[in-house]
Amino acid sequence: MSQPPEGPDFSIADVAREGLIERPGTDPAPHDGTGRVDLSFTVHAKAEGGADVPPAQRSVRVPPGVTVFDAASWNGIAIDSTCGGHGTCHKCKIQITSDVEVPVTRHDARTFTAGQLSDGWRLGCLVHATRDLAVEVPPLTTRPKAATVGIGRQVILRPALQKRYVELDEATLSDQRTDLVRLTDAIDDLELTADLHVLRRLSTVLRESDFKVTAVVVDEDLIDVEPGDTTAARYAIAFDLGTTTVVGTLLDVGTGTPMAVTSMLNAQQPFGGDVITRISATMMDKDALGRLQEAAGRTLAELAEQVCREAGVDPAHVYEVAVAGNATMTALALGIDPEPLGVAPFVMSAAQPPSVLASDIGLSLHPRARAFFFPALGAYVGGDIVAGMLATGMDRDKRTRLFIDVGTNCEIVLSDGETILSTAAPAGPAFEGGAIRCGMRAADGAIEVITLDPHAEGDAPAVTLGVIGDVEPKGLCGSGLVDAVAELVKVGLLDASGRLVPDEDAKEIAPALANRLSRIGEERVFILHRPAHDTDPTECVYLSQRDVRELQFAKAAISTGWSLLLEELGLEHRDVQQVLLAGSFGSYLSPASAVRIGLVPQLPVLRIVAAGNVAGEGAKMALLSVRERAGALALLEEVTYVELSDRPDFNDAFVDQLGFKA
Amino acid sequence: MSQPPEGPDFSIADVAREGLIERPGTDPAPHDGTGRVDLSFTVHAKAEGGADVPPAQRSVRVPPGVTVFDAASWNGIAIDSTCGGHGTCHKCKIQITSDVEVPVTRHDARTFTAGQLSDGWRLGCLVHATRDLAVEVPPLTTRPKAATVGIGRQVILRPALQKRYVELDEATLSDQRTDLVRLTDAIDDLELTADLHVLRRLSTVLRESDFKVTAVVVDEDLIDVEPGDTTAARYAIAFDLGTTTVVGTLLDVGTGTPMAVTSMLNAQQPFGGDVITRISATMMDKDALGRLQEAAGRTLAELAEQVCREAGVDPAHVYEVAVAGNATMTALALGIDPEPLGVAPFVMSAAQPPSVLASDIGLSLHPRARAFFFPALGAYVGGDIVAGMLATGMDRDKRTRLFIDVGTNCEIVLSDGETILSTAAPAGPAFEGGAIRCGMRAADGAIEVITLDPHAEGDAPAVTLGVIGDVEPKGLCGSGLVDAVAELVKVGLLDASGRLVPDEDAKEIAPALANRLSRIGEERVFILHRPAHDTDPTECVYLSQRDVRELQFAKAAISTGWSLLLEELGLEHRDVQQVLLAGSFGSYLSPASAVRIGLVPQLPVLRIVAAGNVAGEGAKMALLSVRERAGALALLEEVTYVELSDRPDFNDAFVDQLGFKA
Repeated sequence: MSQPPEGPDFSIADVAREGLIERPGTDPAPHDGTGRVDLSFTVHAKAEGGADVPPAQRSVRVPPGVTVFDAASWNGIAIDSTCGGHGTCHKCKIQITSDVEVPVTRHDARTFTAGQLSDGWRLGCLVHATRDLAVEVPPLTTRPKAATVGIGRQVILRPALQKRYVELDEATLSDQRTDLVRLTDAIDDLELTADLHVLRRLSTVLRESDFKVTAVVVDEDLIDVEPGDTTAARYAIAFDLGTTTVVGTLLDVGTGTPMAVTSMLNAQQPFGGDVITRISATMMDKDALGRLQEAAGRTLAELAEQVCREAGVDPAHVYEVAVAGNATMTALALGIDPEPLGVAPFVMSAAQPPSVLASDIGLSLHPRARAFFFPALGAYVGGDIVAGMLATGMDRDKRTRLFIDVGTNCEIVLSDGETILSTAAPAGPAFEGGAIRCGMRAADGAIEVITLDPHAEGDAPAVTLGVIGDVEPKGLCGSGLVDAVAELVKVGLLDASGRLVPDEDAKEIAPALANRLSRIGEERVFILHRPAHDTDPTECVYLSQRDVRELQFAKAAISTGWSLLLEELGLEHRDVQQVLLAGSFGSYLSPASAVRIGLVPQLPVLRIVAAGNVAGEGAKMALLSVRERAGALALLEEVTYVELSDRPDFNDAFVDQLGFKA
Repeated sequence: MSQPPEGPDFSIADVAREGLIERPGTDPAPHDGTGRVDLSFTVHAKAEGGADVPPAQRSVRVPPGVTVFDAASWNGIAIDSTCGGHGTCHKCKIQITSDVEVPVTRHDARTFTAGQLSDGWRLGCLVHATRDLAVEVPPLTTRPKAATVGIGRQVILRPALQKRYVELDEATLSDQRTDLVRLTDAIDDLELTADLHVLRRLSTVLRESDFKVTAVVVDEDLIDVEPGDTTAARYAIAFDLGTTTVVGTLLDVGTGTPMAVTSMLNAQQPFGGDVITRISATMMDKDALGRLQEAAGRTLAELAEQVCREAGVDPAHVYEVAVAGNATMTALALGIDPEPLGVAPFVMSAAQPPSVLASDIGLSLHPRARAFFFPALGAYVGGDIVAGMLATGMDRDKRTRLFIDVGTNCEIVLSDGETILSTAAPAGPAFEGGAIRCGMRAADGAIEVITLDPHAEGDAPAVTLGVIGDVEPKGLCGSGLVDAVAELVKVGLLDASGRLVPDEDAKEIAPALANRLSRIGEERVFILHRPAHDTDPTECVYLSQRDVRELQFAKAAISTGWSLLLEELGLEHRDVQQVLLAGSFGSYLSPASAVRIGLVPQLPVLRIVAAGNVAGEGAKMALLSVRERAGALALLEEVTYVELSDRPDFNDAFVDQLGFKA
């Protein structure tokens, strides 16, 4: 492999005559959305001081049609670039060494000589990988910055938000270029467009600052021109817009550093705890949509204000936000009528929300700050899941992985490394504490971990509880519920059908726990915690027979979801190499209990990973890398949404999943 | 020539493998802006009833890089199309019969068989004319509408504003396409994008109107979705935003019919009569820009209201406006600081104003109506001139033509059929009546035509005046001024240097007129009109020696402008085949007088044509045809702006032009 070449020795006209020219367009190469191609990278580098180091080999699998540059970036392989893959900076030089013909684009013809082109040199951002390719990557001329975001993913920093400080020549009678052209000529690796608001300020700012200005760019939109050098101040906010909780993270996009993180309850709570009650509110009262939109905006604005204050950052220096929320939260924040999301056949207005200003969603940041909303795959597999898939690299891992976000609505994604399927399962409120007698949110006083010892003797406790905040137990949160049922199944107090065993059987099976079985009203219960001062069972924290039924229905809905997806791809439980449990509930859940009750496939617990707030991580990645953002948008094409409620085999599968494996 | 073919017999993949694929992009084929290519069209047609009629031959000359489809459209040759040249409707089938290789695009590969491709069949909107071509145009499958606009130009109607009525299938569980996709799938010849405002309404409108809606599209932006079939109501307003007078024309873009026209004075008048005084106002008072912007908006809004009322059209059915104004008027209407336009080196913020909403410039039409502003070639060759060039076809005529818009600032364009040059000459206020003792605007009482008879006897009048409104003369407007000077030169009362001859000479030269020579104060004057009741010369309408000097300076500035442009192209006066006098002043001017005083080249008067309100005609064309609009934008690349104030030979040329040819 030779050094990256310098320039062409023949003209664009020669190439045009040969009919070889391909223009860059927004239209990706056609592919059928299935299958993958293999790219084998040989990455060359220089040591400090300039000595060659042995090249590194990396093989990656990507959907066909992805550019070589994207494929490299997504996998943490750095290739020079400043323009963001528009073919304009001419820096992402690579050499294709496979014996295949790769089309020559106009930009290639301007960059390389005829000899170099026939040696396989191309601009990496313009080569669409439509078959397996071997690619040589020359040593970097600049050291790219990277940050670790998502689930341990190394992201090469290339934020949509860029600042460029330029010192321009003043205009003269022999150089009457317009102010805009003068500026854009100085930033010629980007193809900038300016809106009216920038043009209104441009001439004044240029002249008041002696033509020394900082261009503020989001994507290729010039959103402002600031006097002097302000390149150090370039911030963005990642929002995880949950139905219950909203998290905001202020990022320095130049370094990838989170400057401040804070969270608060979604101010839409008074309209109802879940998406259905909020959608219903808009159907009952025509003013409710406006008020829900205002509440979402107020929540986001308050978080933005807090993170800026905490980090000492001027909100006017925040130029972009990314929002990961489910389809209903996204619609409500944008003021889009959510009604069709809430009633069959569950239709979205649009999968990809339009690009909007941050001020459109109630934020007071830079007046022209942009807001990026993650797209949704379906009414119940929303932008939060797309962000989570981005953060976990669901589309870039060769392993067979199952992603489950457990909640009132449970989103499930299955990838076998080639095909990605998604679906949603209506789990109901059991995991949120709703519909459970002693259910509560995962707040102080909630039992979240339970261990039972059926044969405890003496001082050894038969029931060991982990309680949030280490206070007197007040109730049972979702993970505690799962633990309780799993432990009762394990010790044999719950049978395979989900029935609490008769008292006489209990005494034999679990002598240390039998006295916990009781009755409240007509219903049998298992008492988890009995206040010392009181023996009234209604004052206790307990699990009722009906609670077990609620959980059974919820877990059956979820396991039916992933069972049908596994079936679609012809896979068995044991084929699943990793289960990612997403969301705050997933983080608290005991993997062993999840396996025990059948919430996840029957797998060794080490294959089950709590992934944490993946939606928020995905939002950060979208702000730090246009490549990653493009990857998120590409998921719309790559992922097939499977509608369960339409399937004739759903009910049979559901019934199969209701019971517990002994 | 065969019939237009139907479909491909090989796959896109075959073509992709051959590396022939070219993607459509926004980047036009490169050309150096000079020279032209010849396209020779053979246009086939069917008579009513289906019989073939003999094909028509048309040869046109266009800048290299223009698509064959554009070249045809600009010259009134109709080719089938519904998508507006994005390669998506696959209707603009043509056959290239020249023996040249024309690249095959993806869209071509989807449209034609391999045999058809090798026979030269292509989509006309994707063939860039980079050399001379012979083109066969098949008979139209639909009859295109056309309208006569501009200077007798036949414009094929293809407005940016389109309405499409669709009846959509309702969503089901097995068809969960988003509302937006459902709509755009039904309009698959356009690639529509929707903004937040449309998405906010979309689901409600679809469901309230049983999925029978009209999509309102401007370019490829879906700006609204209206219940039911509203396709008949599709209006736009063309504005000629003059410094003095503003004209609004309401158009039915479906038929090209003007529904109402009205004009009024620009409400910015109180800030000063010309652009320089208005720019100065913004420099003295920081609030003036806002007030000037508001005044422009108020003027446009009032005209819009009037034309809608007159035509009985709901303003909410006006979806687009086009504005042709000079660079200062454009900047002020948009709220862009005009100061750099007013001081050397005369720099614009941007040549092409960004796309804005009509509401951004104060109009209350459809809330998402778009406003298109014509681009400017320089600070003093503005969008009004670009519109005028469009209306007069300055870039599409093979003749050598000179376009002159006479006013305080005089814009000059010269084309020899290959190269187009433009410049601006500071003529000063003489032609607007300013700085002339008895000067006035072209209003009632203004003398606009003058004929002198030096030897009149008896009752025959020595001075014949044409007066606007046929009332008692009150003053002299620009055309009257030119006539007065021209006639005085003709009869010999003004010598070649511009001096009124001595009284004794006058008696000999023009006995019937000598008594008109008089003196007011120190200054010699020629009395044009003396009120019957009064002999006080200050009550008369007269032309003073100083007035003559003012006119000399003004005409010298203008004739220096076109002289230097002629020199640039190596042309003589007699080479100019047509002089177009634009603007209201140009319409009143006597061609013979203009030649006489040297305001235009020494040519037979039949070559001098008053072109009328060409800016307004250009604005109409931009609304009726996206092709024409693209042509206007292309002028930015095609026309070279020549800055006169920078030229060392300007002063010598100016002095040469000061005198009158005897």
